[in-house]
Amino acid sequence: MNEKNTLGLGLLGLGTVGCGVIKTLRRNGSEIAGRCGHSLSIVCASARDLSKKRPVDMDGIALHNDPMHVVNDERVDIVLELIGGIEPARQLITAALQQGKRVVTANKALLAERGHEIFAAAQQHHTEIAYEAAVAGGIPIIKVLREGLAANRIHSIVGIINGTSNYILSEMCYAQKSFQDALRGAQSSGYAEADPRLDIEGFDAAHKLALIAAVAFGMPLRYEQIYTEGVSAIDMKDMVYAAELDHVIKHVGIARRTSAGVELRVHPVLLPQRSLLAHVDGVMNAFFVAADATGASLYYGAGAGAEPTASAILADVVDIARRPQQQHNPGSFSWSLPSASATDLPVVPMQEVSSLYYLRLKVKDRLGVLARLTTLLAQQGISIEAVSQKEPTPETDTATIVLLTHRVREALMDKAIVMLEQLDEVLDPVVRIRAETLD
Amino acid sequence: MNEKNTLGLGLLGLGTVGCGVIKTLRRNGSEIAGRCGHSLSIVCASARDLSKKRPVDMDGIALHNDPMHVVNDERVDIVLELIGGIEPARQLITAALQQGKRVVTANKALLAERGHEIFAAAQQHHTEIAYEAAVAGGIPIIKVLREGLAANRIHSIVGIINGTSNYILSEMCYAQKSFQDALRGAQSSGYAEADPRLDIEGFDAAHKLALIAAVAFGMPLRYEQIYTEGVSAIDMKDMVYAAELDHVIKHVGIARRTSAGVELRVHPVLLPQRSLLAHVDGVMNAFFVAADATGASLYYGAGAGAEPTASAILADVVDIARRPQQQHNPGSFSWSLPSASATDLPVVPMQEVSSLYYLRLKVKDRLGVLARLTTLLAQQGISIEAVSQKEPTPETDTATIVLLTHRVREALMDKAIVMLEQLDEVLDPVVRIRAETLD
Repeated sequence: MNEKNTLGLGLLGLGTVGCGVIKTLRRNGSEIAGRCGHSLSIVCASARDLSKKRPVDMDGIALHNDPMHVVNDERVDIVLELIGGIEPARQLITAALQQGKRVVTANKALLAERGHEIFAAAQQHHTEIAYEAAVAGGIPIIKVLREGLAANRIHSIVGIINGTSNYILSEMCYAQKSFQDALRGAQSSGYAEADPRLDIEGFDAAHKLALIAAVAFGMPLRYEQIYTEGVSAIDMKDMVYAAELDHVIKHVGIARRTSAGVELRVHPVLLPQRSLLAHVDGVMNAFFVAADATGASLYYGAGAGAEPTASAILADVVDIARRPQQQHNPGSFSWSLPSASATDLPVVPMQEVSSLYYLRLKVKDRLGVLARLTTLLAQQGISIEAVSQKEPTPETDTATIVLLTHRVREALMDKAIVMLEQLDEVLDPVVRIRAETLD
Repeated sequence: MNEKNTLGLGLLGLGTVGCGVIKTLRRNGSEIAGRCGHSLSIVCASARDLSKKRPVDMDGIALHNDPMHVVNDERVDIVLELIGGIEPARQLITAALQQGKRVVTANKALLAERGHEIFAAAQQHHTEIAYEAAVAGGIPIIKVLREGLAANRIHSIVGIINGTSNYILSEMCYAQKSFQDALRGAQSSGYAEADPRLDIEGFDAAHKLALIAAVAFGMPLRYEQIYTEGVSAIDMKDMVYAAELDHVIKHVGIARRTSAGVELRVHPVLLPQRSLLAHVDGVMNAFFVAADATGASLYYGAGAGAEPTASAILADVVDIARRPQQQHNPGSFSWSLPSASATDLPVVPMQEVSSLYYLRLKVKDRLGVLARLTTLLAQQGISIEAVSQKEPTPETDTATIVLLTHRVREALMDKAIVMLEQLDEVLDPVVRIRAETLD
């Protein structure tokens, strides 16, 4: 960058996000230049298939098949990695960092799983890698946590961070679709991949949670220690019963500081209907943040999409452009995260996590069955916030009982569920969904 | 700042916010230092009454009666102005800027009304003034607009930006209190001043809207051109009728870019119950932002209070601390706003603003009255989205009619209301509240 007033950008990848970056920069380029004090110029880009027709103006952008040409181009000051996946993204980013170039990426999987080596490379070569776009592109949550809330000790973050899962649950909740129908709808609307497992089994959310927790708590990336459950086991019935209890079922990532360390978990939860997070529907994302000085705050926006992601990529570019390379100071400005060996905040084992629980039991329609269940729970020290017995099904001589408990340790609940399932009156495995109060 | 690693802070004012800053910095000082790369030390502070007992540890802070001693103290790198009001805050800030010191302020009234001279002084003396705390301390909205959304063209912002008004409306809506009872409740809870006019007549919201619009649209401060209505005319009846139409009444500030310029207005609105903003209750604040790349996003948090405001003050301090004074570059980093003479974006006159309208009419209970009203509106080109006639009051031989219109220009609605009020069947002045769709 130095004395010249134009910063050269090199794009790795010309998919949806790459085209979004070009489009947004072409449209708002002069305003962006005013905000960052430099013109931004996309000097080159790489893609596997250069012959493909793309919906943006490629004028003046040198195109390469080999992404390393982008990394090595002397005119490129900042490399934008928009390929995704682990390889070759990792090698390309590492090569760029080794040349002292700055990197901006949207690659949550790579950072969550291999971030430590990437950040180490950035530090070693006195450069940096920014990643606002890796977590909910339409919400500047990394900036909020790093800077806006810089004076706070963050207590907890509860985030709706997978748009596909939230879309499916919203369709189940409001359009009374089954999980399978909602998933097919998400796929045909382009909200879910042909192989949807990364989304619906919670791994994508866990990638984001690892990054968010690292930024919020100044802890190492602990992706592999995150307890992860997806939405595929959620039944329409539970949506209905949750609503009767004034709750909504959402899929969230939770990062919470406790006296024992940090809880890191991704799973469905019941949220009270009166909470804002319960009203975040469709593919939208949101973060509920509790911090010691600001108290509660919430950030809502698009989780994915070409232009929301491009907006986050370019915000990082503006941040980088606003200060010269030589001002880099790992102690303050850097996006770097603690190394893998930093161990100050242990991840709390799931068995030790305390939670409220929603339970659904299919029971024999017998006199006194409700008393037996509640007595058993009381004997285990589990107190009940709400309970209701649904209309019995005379043909099968069965009934459904739904419970909402007070806060209890997961280990204790596991034990209680085993005991419940051993009762003669309890017919099927007990359905259990955790609940959060957001207090 | 230069080579030393500690930044000296001087506090003007030791009220709620001043004490909040001391408390937050004492508690989280080491984390904050880690984030900004410098230790922060409060070297001195001023207050009118130094003998007053304050709920924080004043150890090591030199106290002065004369605030100019704080401004002039050589150890003070950053002056935090927490007095509020126009004078003497204006003189003190100007004196600090003239010495090239950086200033952080929570003073929305001063910036909205006299910001142009303050920003000019900052620019002239190659320094700057930051003001995150001036608008909704618990929400880093200035940072979001300036940086997080830097790649966007902002279309519109609809904000719940006066906690007192929102508290009063929430109490009217959910606790069925009258406006007067709700106001008294706000006063006894400490949410409203003894003289509540600044809040309930909308002036405080207009101060914030002027700042927000300037940051979002890169336009001059236009406080004096903001159309301003408060909540004091809202009737419980309208809360009930709004709910029947699936709407909630909120008091908002709206800044919207249109082909004619910028709409700047503060007034009550009906919001659809399905919108997140409709669920922002009590003293909480929120901003709904529509931007070209990110689409819709929302930011929610505390609007006031000692520690939320302190959090915003200290976030600005961290931002300033992160870069050395000599790096200052008005074209990019500066918090400065366009000068008063910049005229690129005219404020749209209220008569030209288009809006949806809720109307409530008290009419004689006569056959055909509804037809006469709707015919008159149709002749004026005003189409109706929903209409309902309430149970008549037999004793007075009157009935109430409630309408929700499609979008129409204010001038046309004014004219139509005059015509409605001239009808023989219409008894009282027509009640009119604007509505927003947030689409």
